Parts: sequence; structure tokens; C-alpha cells
Amino acid sequence: MKLARVGAAGAERPAIVGLDGRVRDLSAHVAEIDGRLLAAERLARISAIDPATLPVVEGPVRFGPPIARPGKIICIGLNYTDHAAEVGLDVPTEPTIFMKGCVPTGANDPVRLPRDAEKGDWEVELGIIIGRDGLYIDEDDALAHVGGYCVLNDVSERSYQMEHGGQWTKGKSFPGFAPIGPWLVTPDEIADPGNLSIWLEVNGHRYQNGTTRNLVFSVAQMVSYVSRFYALEAGDLIATGTPAGVGLGQKPPVFLKAGDVMKLGIDGLGVQEQKVIAWGD
Amino acid sequence: MKLARVGAAGAERPAIVGLDGRVRDLSAHVAEIDGRLLAAERLARISAIDPATLPVVEGPVRFGPPIARPGKIICIGLNYTDHAAEVGLDVPTEPTIFMKGCVPTGANDPVRLPRDAEKGDWEVELGIIIGRDGLYIDEDDALAHVGGYCVLNDVSERSYQMEHGGQWTKGKSFPGFAPIGPWLVTPDEIADPGNLSIWLEVNGHRYQNGTTRNLVFSVAQMVSYVSRFYALEAGDLIATGTPAGVGLGQKPPVFLKAGDVMKLGIDGLGVQEQKVIAWGD
Repeated sequence: MKLARVGAAGAERPAIVGLDGRVRDLSAHVAEIDGRLLAAERLARISAIDPATLPVVEGPVRFGPPIARPGKIICIGLNYTDHAAEVGLDVPTEPTIFMKGCVPTGANDPVRLPRDAEKGDWEVELGIIIGRDGLYIDEDDALAHVGGYCVLNDVSERSYQMEHGGQWTKGKSFPGFAPIGPWLVTPDEIADPGNLSIWLEVNGHRYQNGTTRNLVFSVAQMVSYVSRFYALEAGDLIATGTPAGVGLGQKPPVFLKAGDVMKLGIDGLGVQEQKVIAWGD
Repeated sequence: MKLARVGAAGAERPAIVGLDGRVRDLSAHVAEIDGRLLAAERLARISAIDPATLPVVEGPVRFGPPIARPGKIICIGLNYTDHAAEVGLDVPTEPTIFMKGCVPTGANDPVRLPRDAEKGDWEVELGIIIGRDGLYIDEDDALAHVGGYCVLNDVSERSYQMEHGGQWTKGKSFPGFAPIGPWLVTPDEIADPGNLSIWLEVNGHRYQNGTTRNLVFSVAQMVSYVSRFYALEAGDLIATGTPAGVGLGQKPPVFLKAGDVMKLGIDGLGVQEQKVIAWGD
């Protein structure tokens, strides 16, 4: 199933995207797409609904974040062998974790650069949406805690991340730096999250052209590992790292500027497109 | 005003602590103590209530976290000159920021160590509870965004923080690692947040005995600085760093073990007391 939240920011309604690509209103059946909804028995009830019986949402649709505000966004750094190499860092022996402190936005919402932006950058990532609470989750049981997958752009301001002292979160948390969606795809539709094409273009140039086969740590390993340090809650989001091809890794580096258009996608999870705008716009 | 949330975990009721020290039930007047309540006009309405007219909450009272779940907990590292010295790090020229990924607990709730805990540690901190949303908040205007202050214990597992690669958040986020309270004190009761005694004892030994006069960055500077990188929201929490005397700074280092009792406080903000328990207890 592809679940979405459509409508104006802050007033999104739950929706389902059918096999015919049409967006249909789910609000007669569920109030919100959130962690509680991802419990298996509630999802089973939704999957029993014939989408053809639901009203079509007509016209241009804004896709909001496909899950209501997560409790937290946990990010895994340097999780692709090719990306670690391009930024000149060793592949970690344990997952590197940092947090994003912003609220997710919709897949096609504009990305506004900070007032003093210098080094805005892109990172296409496979997003894991947690479906079941857990602490000390065994690797063997980890995929049962996944409620869905989505595309995520881990937008970053590298100057904040690396030139103002300390920890990476500073460069990862500006409002709008976490577009997710357009929809949440339930795990039954993703045969192998470790074998998906993942790509990103800026202004039509394909900078990132990877595959989740190059993940250092698998989805199951990440969910299990994170749950040693954090209580995972249904609705939480894990950003699983980005493949090679970020702006910082170009020679010379390339950074975002107003007017740029980012387009990014993952096999089976849909495509995002964001216009970059300046702070004052 | 001292606002609190009292009762069993997950079922706390809003309360006010009067000048007589008695806890009185506010639930007839407000549904929850959260970011929205901290808007100035709503606080003014509460302060107009004569506490003597409110029912006293009798018997032993559990103080839950004095604010409903924050959107985020942002922490400032190395923000006391004496603490930076004891851990052998330079005083930063800009605030160091990391995030805690756990939900706050009550001031006197037990602190459970992780399953493989080795280096559990304490950090008494002045907590700032944001009362008004903001991005790019000017320093001159920053104190108007403070909704209250509280005591916070930034409990840490140093082995997670420093021996598993990467970023500090890994050692700061285990469930129960953010006791706050016992109450939220509105800013009108704190003449100068930059001139408060701040202390912590373990098993009756005073390890931390500091003053917020030694803060590297002031409350106004922190609020303003953080708001350059994060959209601050009413109800968010900023942990402002700890003075000298953490376990890691002892020679030789001292770490928490099951059965220890931490007691900590800040002038005018009350006292916390937590029993340390093992994972299996």
C-alpha cells in the first residue's frame, strides 16, 4: 500500500494511492496516518478496503509528509561505501548516529536556504518509518518493526555542519531540511530494501546514482543497532545514509543556490522534486 | 509560578505549587501544561487564580515531567569553563549543540542503566523551556521566548558517547536519561538565570558545586544562537550544559552503579532525587 497525506500544510488528509496512480481520500476510515496506524492489525483493515470505493482527490494534489510528525528523526551517517570515500572518511565499524531537529515537509515543497547559507547540499536517502515500538530489538526481529519506507532528502548546510564547532546536527536541522514522501510504502511492496536504485539530480544532472546494495549496514542491522541507544517509537523516522554524489564530494564542490531544482527517487518509493529558494523569497 | 504535572506516568494532571509548598490541582482550569499554555496571555490567566481556591493534591505526589513531551531537546555542550577544563577540551568559541533523543521523565523517577552500561554519568543542568516559537531570534528579544526554567539531569553513558564512533547523541538518549523538574518556574521568579547555584550529589557526596555565573554562553545567547539552526517551538527544551564535577572528570573517574542516589538542584528551581537501578531491576 501507498499511504499519503494530501492537502495544504498543516491540514493534510489521509489518502491512499491506488494501483491506477489515483489519489483517494481515506479520511472516512482513518483520522491520521501516524505511528499508531502502522500497527499491523490496523493496516490490515485498511488494506481490506477496495480503493475504488473511495472518493478520488481531484486536481493538483500537494503531498504533505506521509506520516504525522515523528517523535524523532535519527540519521545514520557514512552508510554507503562510495559516499564515505568521496568525503574522505573511513567507513565506520559501527553506525554513526546523529539527529535531525526539524519537522518533515512534503516531497515537493520548496527548500528554503538559511539566511547565511553558503554550502547547501543534498542527500537522497532511504527512510525507514518505524511501525512498532521497541528497545533492544534483535536483528532477526527488526524488519517486523518497520512500518514503511519512503524517500527522504537529508538536506544539509555543510558550513553549519562542519565549520561552527561540534556536532553535525547543527547543519541538518533547519526548517524544511527533511522532505519525505511523496508516500509511505508498506514493506509488503518492497521485496528487498537492500536492492533498490537510489538517485538524485540537480537541474537535470544526475549527481547521485546509487543502489542500496552498497549500504554498509542493512535495514535490519540499523533498526537493531539504533534500538540499543534509543527507544524506537511507532512513527519515528530513520534516515539511512546517502550514496556517493553529494555536492561536497564534487571536484570542485557544488552547492545549492536559489533556483536550483532537486529531483530524487528510489525504486518503488516514488519521486520528489524540490525548488530551492532563497531565505527572502 | 511553579507549574507541575503530577500523578502516575502517562496520566499526569496539571498542578500549581503554591507559596505554602502545597501542590494544588489545576485541571479544572487547564487541560495540559505544554508549549501552548506558556503563551503569555494564558499564563496571565493562571496567575490570576488564587491557589487557595484550588483543591490540594494530598498524599505522596509523583512529579512527572513539568511540561508535556517537548518537540525536541537541544543540548549545549561544554558550556561551563570549569567543566571544559576537567574533560580536557577547549572552551568552544561557538556553542556546541547535540540532541537528546529520549522523552523526559519525572524529577524523582529512578534512572535505569542500559543493559551493557559501563560509564553512566550525571550532569546537572539549567533547563530552558521555550515559551514562544521563533527562528532568527535576536539576543535582545531572546528572554521573551523563555517560558520557564527547570532542573535537568543530562544523564549520559560515556562509553556510548565516546567509544562507539561518531556523535554524542548516542550516549545521551537512553530512556530515562532526561529527568526534568520537579516543576517549571516561570521567568518572573528568576531574577537572573546567570547567577544561580547549581549542584549535584551522589550518595551524599557533592561532586558538582557550581554557579551559572560560569556559563560560557548566557541564556539569551543560547536561545538566539540555537534559533539560527533550528526553528524553536513552544515546549522545546534547551539543556544549557553542566558545571565541573561530572564522574568522567574525577581522578580516577567515577561512574554510576545500581543503588546510587543522585540528588541535584538549582537555586529557586527545586531539587531532584533519583535512585539508580540496573537494567534488570
